[in-house]
Amino acid sequence: MTKLQVLKIGGKVIDDKERLDELLTAFAKLQGSKVLIHGGGSKASQMEQQLGLTPKMVEGRRITDEHSIEVVTMVYAGLINKKIVAGLQKNGCNALGLSGADANVIQSAKRQVATIDYGFVGDVKMVNASFIESLLSQGITPVFSAISHDGSGQLLNTNADTIASDIAIAMVQAFDVSLLLAFEKNGVLDANNQVISHLNETSFQTLKQAGVIIDGMIPKLTNAFNALKKGVTEVMLTSAEYLVNKKLPFTKIVL
Amino acid sequence: MTKLQVLKIGGKVIDDKERLDELLTAFAKLQGSKVLIHGGGSKASQMEQQLGLTPKMVEGRRITDEHSIEVVTMVYAGLINKKIVAGLQKNGCNALGLSGADANVIQSAKRQVATIDYGFVGDVKMVNASFIESLLSQGITPVFSAISHDGSGQLLNTNADTIASDIAIAMVQAFDVSLLLAFEKNGVLDANNQVISHLNETSFQTLKQAGVIIDGMIPKLTNAFNALKKGVTEVMLTSAEYLVNKKLPFTKIVL
Repeated sequence: MTKLQVLKIGGKVIDDKERLDELLTAFAKLQGSKVLIHGGGSKASQMEQQLGLTPKMVEGRRITDEHSIEVVTMVYAGLINKKIVAGLQKNGCNALGLSGADANVIQSAKRQVATIDYGFVGDVKMVNASFIESLLSQGITPVFSAISHDGSGQLLNTNADTIASDIAIAMVQAFDVSLLLAFEKNGVLDANNQVISHLNETSFQTLKQAGVIIDGMIPKLTNAFNALKKGVTEVMLTSAEYLVNKKLPFTKIVL
Repeated sequence: MTKLQVLKIGGKVIDDKERLDELLTAFAKLQGSKVLIHGGGSKASQMEQQLGLTPKMVEGRRITDEHSIEVVTMVYAGLINKKIVAGLQKNGCNALGLSGADANVIQSAKRQVATIDYGFVGDVKMVNASFIESLLSQGITPVFSAISHDGSGQLLNTNADTIASDIAIAMVQAFDVSLLLAFEKNGVLDANNQVISHLNETSFQTLKQAGVIIDGMIPKLTNAFNALKKGVTEVMLTSAEYLVNKKLPFTKIVL
């Protein structure tokens, strides 16, 4: 089966022009079919503040009200997505930027209000794998921002790790898929701040209960295990720099 | 030959949610292959002011400095493009939003400085007709924002009328193309503010010299005549409302 590399980048690398350039150069050089998913870095919150809006966060998660969905759409699907696409084109990689609304490639449902109303936040319902496959077969590299839509005209802010793992899962029918979730650290850290080379679900649960794995790392790892269980061949968590220097440490997710 | 309808919208209709909804509903209903190109309305200038930037204009034209290209990329390729795409998807039209950087679909060259330095403004060099054709053959409707790129990583603000006419021209090899440039008026107006039903180039030159056709109408009509000369079957100037009500007046461009 043909290999497909799915890479998710987020955090500070998005905000740092030099690091981003270096990363895009390395990504452009990857042989074969590939997909890039990017988060938004700190630019959306910065933009909200510049516009006199106050970013609302509950337990470290953004509350996306009607102004906020406009700002994240502008920043993620506009500014960051097009900068990345233009940067990849410069490096000879034929990139195409997408939100979930484009070609109805990712449809989601607005999250139901339980204890917290997250606002215009979507949970992925459907990934249009055949459209992604048709792009890849034309030598085009899809670049996804973490904005999806509900099919009824509403754009929805969506977790970029979830989009990455759901895309990886959707492609397993046609490809031998590897998923790399890049973030600020070199991998998942143990209680001594050392990168765990192989993490299985039992260890994940133990480290979670011990309070070593906390906050945003929990949904990230839940997405990672979900991808592996649903047929993705290889799932890794590491820094974006790993793409530039393959000698850097990483965490491999195992069942 | 298969028919292709190319529609360009701009101005106030972009800013008015109700008018835009009505227009997108009508556009979604158009049978056959179609392409939409949109301008930015007043949102980019508004956004610049909210961000404490001063929109720079010379002779009614925007000067796109390094802050300004970020704002227009956010607003045109992000906010407006994705709202239009989501609105078309809602109406059952499988739209895909594009900037010129995406799949290298429109490459332009930064405008040379003559008397005025327009900054990051591009003049179209190449339209990737085969990619547009591949989208249309999959039943996908491309939706273009007026942002292109130079192939070397730089995004460029580009005239939406020029993009529309250059796309129309690029598609004449494979399609019987009609081009509709929609704007604030019901058509080109004569000295008595009446819509001219048929405008040929001699009349255009006469009205231009008489000061009846001025400002932004001059490049718009130059684009319109250029499209007709280069093989576009039908070129019309009218209001966006024409799509909703075909009884409204329009100007047909003739050679």
